[in-house]
Amino acid sequence: MVMFVTGAAGFIGSHLVDRLLAQGHRVIGVDNMIRGTRANIATALANPSFRFLEVDMANPQSIRTVLYPVFESLAEPVHTVWHLAANSDVAAGVADPGIDLKDTFQTTYETVALMRAFDMKELAFASTSAVYGNHPEQLVETLGPLLPISSYGAMKLASEAHISAAAESHISQTWLFRFPNVVGSRGTHGIIYDLLGKLLKNREELEVLGDGSQKKPYLHVSDLIDAMLFIRGNATEKRALYNIGPEDDGVTVASIAQAVLDASKTGARLRYTGGNRGWVGDVPRFYYSVEKLAKLGWRPSGSSAQAVSRAVAELVVERGLI
Amino acid sequence: MVMFVTGAAGFIGSHLVDRLLAQGHRVIGVDNMIRGTRANIATALANPSFRFLEVDMANPQSIRTVLYPVFESLAEPVHTVWHLAANSDVAAGVADPGIDLKDTFQTTYETVALMRAFDMKELAFASTSAVYGNHPEQLVETLGPLLPISSYGAMKLASEAHISAAAESHISQTWLFRFPNVVGSRGTHGIIYDLLGKLLKNREELEVLGDGSQKKPYLHVSDLIDAMLFIRGNATEKRALYNIGPEDDGVTVASIAQAVLDASKTGARLRYTGGNRGWVGDVPRFYYSVEKLAKLGWRPSGSSAQAVSRAVAELVVERGLI
Repeated sequence: MVMFVTGAAGFIGSHLVDRLLAQGHRVIGVDNMIRGTRANIATALANPSFRFLEVDMANPQSIRTVLYPVFESLAEPVHTVWHLAANSDVAAGVADPGIDLKDTFQTTYETVALMRAFDMKELAFASTSAVYGNHPEQLVETLGPLLPISSYGAMKLASEAHISAAAESHISQTWLFRFPNVVGSRGTHGIIYDLLGKLLKNREELEVLGDGSQKKPYLHVSDLIDAMLFIRGNATEKRALYNIGPEDDGVTVASIAQAVLDASKTGARLRYTGGNRGWVGDVPRFYYSVEKLAKLGWRPSGSSAQAVSRAVAELVVERGLI
Repeated sequence: MVMFVTGAAGFIGSHLVDRLLAQGHRVIGVDNMIRGTRANIATALANPSFRFLEVDMANPQSIRTVLYPVFESLAEPVHTVWHLAANSDVAAGVADPGIDLKDTFQTTYETVALMRAFDMKELAFASTSAVYGNHPEQLVETLGPLLPISSYGAMKLASEAHISAAAESHISQTWLFRFPNVVGSRGTHGIIYDLLGKLLKNREELEVLGDGSQKKPYLHVSDLIDAMLFIRGNATEKRALYNIGPEDDGVTVASIAQAVLDASKTGARLRYTGGNRGWVGDVPRFYYSVEKLAKLGWRPSGSSAQAVSRAVAELVVERGLI
């Protein structure tokens, strides 16, 4: 089948591309190459079933010029659209909400418009646990109100809403995945990436934002891709909305910092900046329900702690720390 | 105090302006005059405490040229922003989602940006029950997921989300009102308006979309304004989100059609098109919880049926049917 992936050269998108190709699909991938890299899709680019196009999905002109001719000449129609293009740097969007507006929401709007123009019927979308905002309750899919505390979460929720409305007209089937914190190779943001970056600059002292008590669930990107494909294959609701995550309530920043420190073999000392939040828009602690997904029949291969330690091992090598 | 109202010449906006002026506030009102009319603000325009500006709140250029100089020269800062500018024609947005994107979401985005530029701290926003989508459960504020079935609902939800994120940074207090179907004089859309429009064209037969069984709660606009002011004055949460509505579960389309027919004195016969939905994006039946608002201390002055009959009486005169 022909699959269309936006954000194909990004962290999660590139892993999805690799997996779809391994399953024997033909894949058309686009990326604006702001956070995506050619290195991420190096293996895919060598595969004749992969076609990559540099397109900014927030830009209708770019879509019309580069993508329209490709879709107009396709022998077989696109089966499923996997929309992963987004700003993934939550803190950047807090400083300038225009980033999330453009890279997260407008890419969704234009992806849906493209699907309308070419009569594509199935859309799988990468949403986020950040749509829930700062709730004291366990984050289950039936929970409201949804009051995000970051532009990132807000524009993902706006995207869910827009897709949901389109499912009432020209899109026949949608899958909305609410991602937890995802870790693994090719990661371009997040705590492990940041801590390793700091160690690359200073091998004596490692500064950690907050007091180390923030606790969050983490999933390894390979498990995440598994879950996405499983939901895509098994959930039949018109708007199949699923939290994806590990089954535990997470690991603390302190234990992640220690894992990074151990793997780096630098012997740096830890210094906490204090307070229970790392930065504005950060959700300090939450409990994530993945019961709905378990009922559908999918369970992660490991815990948050295992995901973190596997990701740390991958990233210390990838970033050249050891 | 100085109040800023977007959508000031619209149905609900103009009633809010009248009430704020009656309370002794100075009011700056803007409207793009697409659905708003000078007739709606005729009384307000005669009041020296009202200043009206034709501005398209979705257009940063219009805001910069027309609004910036006004806000730069204000002696007293704006106290509360009441953001009501939006597309109110749900069916139009189903045909072209670009209308809701621009008139509902982008107006919110630019209103929030304007507040950031001029350090305005308080925002009251007109959201909608349409954010809930087609839920079988009673629509209570704690309900999720929010999967709207119209672009109208989607872009209102996107607006809630964007405002919620801004409340984490530069906005200090927000009130999010989820409106039910609102009826009364100056209405520019909705079933009563439509039915009267049909009768104006054909006094023999009145066509009604659906089978007449759709049942919805209705609130009279005067009660709605009461509730908004009450919530603004009494709810202290940073993101005070409240359903506003009557306490009953609504009236049917059939009884509204009958009320319109009776008031019109035309003696036309009713003809139903059949089916349980009037149009794509329409929610056929829902139960709306207003318990949270009742707990805060506000109750409507009348039932859905009373709101409808009062509105019909106002609109048959206003539209020149009798």
